[in-house]
Formats: sequence, structure tokens, C-alpha cells
Amino acid sequence: MNDHSTPILASQGTPCLLVDEERMERNIARLRDRLRAAEVAFRPHLKTAKSWEVSRLLMTTPQGPATVSTLREAEELAAHGVKDITYAVGISPDKLTRVQKLRAGGIALTILLDSVEQALAVAKASDPKDPIPVLIELDCDGHRSGVKPQDATLLAAIAQALAPRARLEGVLTHAGESYEARGSEALSAAAEQERAAAVMAAETLRAKGWPCPVVSVGSTPTAFSAQSYAGVTEVRAGVFVFFDLVQAGIGICTQDDIALSVLTTVIGHQREKGWTIVDAGWTALSCDRGTATQNVDQGYGLVCDLEGRPITNLIVTIVNQEHGIVAARQGTPRSDQEFPIGTRLRILPSHACATATQHDRYHVIGAGQSDVTAVWPRFTGW
Amino acid sequence: MNDHSTPILASQGTPCLLVDEERMERNIARLRDRLRAAEVAFRPHLKTAKSWEVSRLLMTTPQGPATVSTLREAEELAAHGVKDITYAVGISPDKLTRVQKLRAGGIALTILLDSVEQALAVAKASDPKDPIPVLIELDCDGHRSGVKPQDATLLAAIAQALAPRARLEGVLTHAGESYEARGSEALSAAAEQERAAAVMAAETLRAKGWPCPVVSVGSTPTAFSAQSYAGVTEVRAGVFVFFDLVQAGIGICTQDDIALSVLTTVIGHQREKGWTIVDAGWTALSCDRGTATQNVDQGYGLVCDLEGRPITNLIVTIVNQEHGIVAARQGTPRSDQEFPIGTRLRILPSHACATATQHDRYHVIGAGQSDVTAVWPRFTGW
Repeated sequence: MNDHSTPILASQGTPCLLVDEERMERNIARLRDRLRAAEVAFRPHLKTAKSWEVSRLLMTTPQGPATVSTLREAEELAAHGVKDITYAVGISPDKLTRVQKLRAGGIALTILLDSVEQALAVAKASDPKDPIPVLIELDCDGHRSGVKPQDATLLAAIAQALAPRARLEGVLTHAGESYEARGSEALSAAAEQERAAAVMAAETLRAKGWPCPVVSVGSTPTAFSAQSYAGVTEVRAGVFVFFDLVQAGIGICTQDDIALSVLTTVIGHQREKGWTIVDAGWTALSCDRGTATQNVDQGYGLVCDLEGRPITNLIVTIVNQEHGIVAARQGTPRSDQEFPIGTRLRILPSHACATATQHDRYHVIGAGQSDVTAVWPRFTGW
Repeated sequence: MNDHSTPILASQGTPCLLVDEERMERNIARLRDRLRAAEVAFRPHLKTAKSWEVSRLLMTTPQGPATVSTLREAEELAAHGVKDITYAVGISPDKLTRVQKLRAGGIALTILLDSVEQALAVAKASDPKDPIPVLIELDCDGHRSGVKPQDATLLAAIAQALAPRARLEGVLTHAGESYEARGSEALSAAAEQERAAAVMAAETLRAKGWPCPVVSVGSTPTAFSAQSYAGVTEVRAGVFVFFDLVQAGIGICTQDDIALSVLTTVIGHQREKGWTIVDAGWTALSCDRGTATQNVDQGYGLVCDLEGRPITNLIVTIVNQEHGIVAARQGTPRSDQEFPIGTRLRILPSHACATATQHDRYHVIGAGQSDVTAVWPRFTGW
């Protein structure tokens, strides 16, 4: 047991998920200040947090606006009084019953799609007295889903298929490929590509007579790198609330900004291999290897002491279900530090969304890094 | 919507976890029959299932024996009347309070350790009127934790440190490296190495006067490959209950034995890339890439139709949080099959333990592959 620790954090059962409230609030303030200065609205993505308490701090009002990745998140937020929600994953027709139930309950829920097929299904299901608001998803960088922003024919066909029973609200894009950008120039270029794609598609639709009031962009790397938001009406971002080693590798934050960690306990050693074995495996850390393709491979997480200070070159190199193997990063000298059985360590996550998903609650730690000041439940499932 | 389906499975909300009860029961019978014929006891590992209903089918009696990977599993099983449980992850001293609480409740809970340091802590915490039973973990193949089986000095030192307050019950090993074995000869050799290591260590301890009644071995590949269990008193295995693509790649099962799948819905396309986009991302499938180093890389899972028939060469190639990208396996021709928006597909898991962990319940499907006959909750957390 570490002498510097107070009993409260040090006696917490492990593994468990910690959130450093001070760092989290600093991260939130950083983006909110930036967007306020740029006079663009903020619609935080709550898929990383999946917690009412964190959502409250992220949203600019207790009623929203908010972005979610599952209808479960929308339902949980609605139960807490959030009124303005965008479900930012392409809709399948069978989910429209839940969408309509939320809307009937007074939630301004907007959905996303990128095909005429979906638009026809939404129009068919929509009540003309309460047309479902729809954003067309754009593919600004080849990352995933979406209409190519220059595909005027498809954009118009989708708008046409929605009318008049559903309502075209605007366009939405996510620069997922910005995760591969390195350096401020490339990051700004990714942000500009995202902005230009959204604005171009909106202008195309407006020229064809569709009002298209919403122009929504966002990803954590681009939200912090855009030089202009001209024509953009709202920005979405999620993982920045906690940040993680992937974002630090991209250069969007430093390791000192990472607000999430997994508390773990040393349960063994293989000294001749330089291994310390801890009780955080992939059930606690996730199998995410997001830094594997970055300059510095952080394995399944960077090891810190109980107070959250990174321990030079020690990472989780292997994960099994309930075991993590802590060792020196490849190509670095083996550590001569000994962590006796029972030592508490903290692991900074490779990908905060993935690590948080493995847990059903947050243990909130205060500025002294020694007390658990609150326990916040997480939403799970779909 | 698929014409062959009945409404019940086809109308299930997605993503969700399916278990094919018939395949599962066949898998269980296969190992139980094998071990019964070999006259060796079976102590199923319940870390894959984490469900009372599945555990009941796995265990040879409703009271056990059972193996678990977390104390939470032990507590859940104890609440269902299981009496004989081995917690097969190295103990840390802070967890002994929960161990003792279970033991005080009448549970024969045995713990694991591989150091004098842990043995002294267990002896100190143990009540001489109810000595905690302990297995010494052995490292039979360099996979993870454990004492080298030939390290007679350390084995004796641990036994000595436990006495007399705690009770040395025996030895336990897990041939984790058997996952890398290919071909029946290599698999049998891995099983023999596991058996020989455990028996050697037990004999060493007995020669020094420690009774060592339990000799416990197990992993799914070795449990199905051992030619001899001479000297072994019990076998543990877990993932075989569902099997998965990793086990099929090792050759321990066929794809037709895989009892677990994730039901998903098509939500989009990028046709020029040959992509079908589904609503099962890493939250539903996990990020596990266990087949990446095997002969056939199955990505994040093999795609099947709603009835569970694999679709030649289609796998999940990319996962984001709530999106899976389905495409032809690299080096194979692009599929010309079109899956309209709303089509239901099933994904066979790379690693069943990891995929199951992402869900809080099983949807049990009957032999017709069309009805959800039951919903079984899963244990979560630690």
C-alpha cells in the first residue's frame, strides 16, 4: 500500500474506472470556450460519457443540445429532461418505433440517414402532423457512412423522398479520418475538409429549394483544429471529455489532460521477464490498440502510480480476460522498479470510449487524487 | 426482412447477443462425455458464460464444482446455491475479505497464488478454525503467471508460508500457449506439457510432505487434445461452451459448433467500396482480433444470414463504436450479394469471451433458428 495515499482511493476494489473531475472540467471548458469564441453552437456527443452526471457538465443547458450513438442513450437522457437530441448513427426502419415514442414524449429527436431507401421508410413511418426531422449524413473523408458531398443528385433524391411527411433538417458529417492526421497543418486541413464538405452539401440542397438549416460537423481532432467554422451551425465532439492516449498521440491533448484511468492491483510477477501482473485485463481496459499505428505504441494503456503520475516507459503489453501484463515498452530498458503484491497502479486508456464501455460506473476522484468523491452510473446496452 | 424468418427473432432489437441452445448443449456434452470416459472430474470455467442458466448446464451438479475469474462470479453463483468454487486468478490481499465472507457463508472457495508474499498474506488473514484452501499456480508454458513446475525451492517455500493457518490444497495450471498450437500433434503435446508440469509439481510437494490432493489443469484446446490425464484430478475449460472463430482456427471445433452470435441490422452501404454497414460495432462485437495471427483472418467476426449460415468470405473488417463494416475478406473476390437496409445478419465471434462480455443478456434461440425461447441475464463487473 502506498504511503502517500489516503485510505479511500487506496482501498477501492479493483479493477475500477476512475474519472479525475478537475481534468474533465478543464477539458470541457477548453472546447466550450473555443466554440463560444467562434460563435458556433456545441452539441456534445455523449457516447463516450454515457452518464447523466457527465452529460450535465458537457451540455450547454440541462435540456441539451446533445448527440447520442444509441437510442438507449436518448431514452436515458430523455428521462433526465434532455429535450434536444441527435441520434447520429444511420437509422434502420425497425428503430423508428422507438424514435416516434421519444418524439411523442416531447423530445426533439433528429435522426440520420444516407440513402433514398431509408428516406422512403422514414417518410412512410412519419406522422405528417409531427414530421420526423432528418439530417443527411455526408462522407467527407472516406471514413465510413454518408453521401459524397458533391453528389447533388443523391442529395436531392433523398430530400425529395423525405418530403412532405418527414422534414429535411440539414446535413451532418464526421471527419473520422482526422484520427490519422499528424501535425497542426494536417489537422487543420482535415477540419477544413469536414467544414467545406458540409457547407457544400447544404448549399447544394438550398440551391434546389431545401432550406437545410443545420450544418453539423465534428470529431475531437477537428473540433480543436478548425481555423474557420464559416457556414457551420454546430460542432459535435465526445472523447475530448476524458481524452486518451490516442488523442495525446495525435497531439490534441497531453497525457496530463487524460481524465480517465483504470485502478488496478498488482497480483504477481514474472521477474525474469520483467513482468508485473495486474488485475486489469481486457474486461477492464478493452482490447483497443488504437496507438499501435502511432509513433509511440502505448499498448493497452500507460501505467501510472496511484496519484496518476505516468511511470516512464511502463505500459500494459498483453491483456487476458482478468490479467494485464505490465512491462517496459519495446525498445526501452527494462524497469528496475519493483511493485510489491497489492500495489495500486492506474492505467491511462488507449481509447477512452472503449475502456469506459467496459464499466458500469465511474469513481470520481477529487483534486487530491486520493478520495472517491462520488460514484456515477453509466448507461449500458442499446 | 428475410422471408424465411418468423417474426420473433427477426423483430428483435439489434444489436443483441444470441445463443444457439442446441449447439451449446452439444458442446457441453462433447467435453463432459470425454472427461467422463477418462474418469477425470470436470470443473467448468464459468468466465465465458457468466450466466446462471448456462452455468447450470455446464456444471456436473447444481452445487458445482465451478471455476471463476472474478469474485463477482463467485458471489453470483453462491447466491444460486453453488458450494464448490475455485477463484482461478492470483489473489491480492485486499480481496481476502470477500473470500472470507463467501467462506463464512458456507462456500468451499479455493484461491490461487504463486508467491511467498501472497502465501504469507493469506496465512495472516486465514482463520485457523477455517483455513483458506489454496492452490499454487504453475507456469507450464511461459504464458502468464505461476511458479515454474521444476522450482522445488519456491514450491516448498510457498507451502511452508501457508502453514498452518491456510491449507495447501494442490496445484493448478493453464496451458494458455496451447492457443498457438496447430495440428493434433502440437495440441496433444501442449496438453501433455500441461499435465506433466502439474503432476511434477504435485509430486515435488508430496515428496516434501505436503499432501497436495488437487492437480488441476485446463484450457479448451488441451481439454480436447489430452491423450492422458494420469495424475490429474480435475480439468477446467470455459470457451468451449460456445466455441468461436479462434477455436475453429485452432481446429478444436468447426464453424457449425459456434453457439454464439451477434444479431445485427444493415444500416447503410458504400457500394463502390463493397461495404455493407451494420449496427454492430465494437460495443457489440468487442475489439478482439484473435484470428489475426491465424491462417484465416476472420476480422471482427464472420457474417452469417439470419438462420446462422455463414456467407462465403464476408467478414466484419472494421469496427467503430456502433458501426461494423462488412466486406469480403482480403484477397477474396468482392461479393455481389446485396443486403438491403433493414436486413438482419448474424456475426460469429472471433473470441466468444470478449464478445459476450459486451452484453448484459443472452437471447436464446431454439433449433428452428427463428424463435427467441428465453432471455438469460449475464453477470457483469468484478
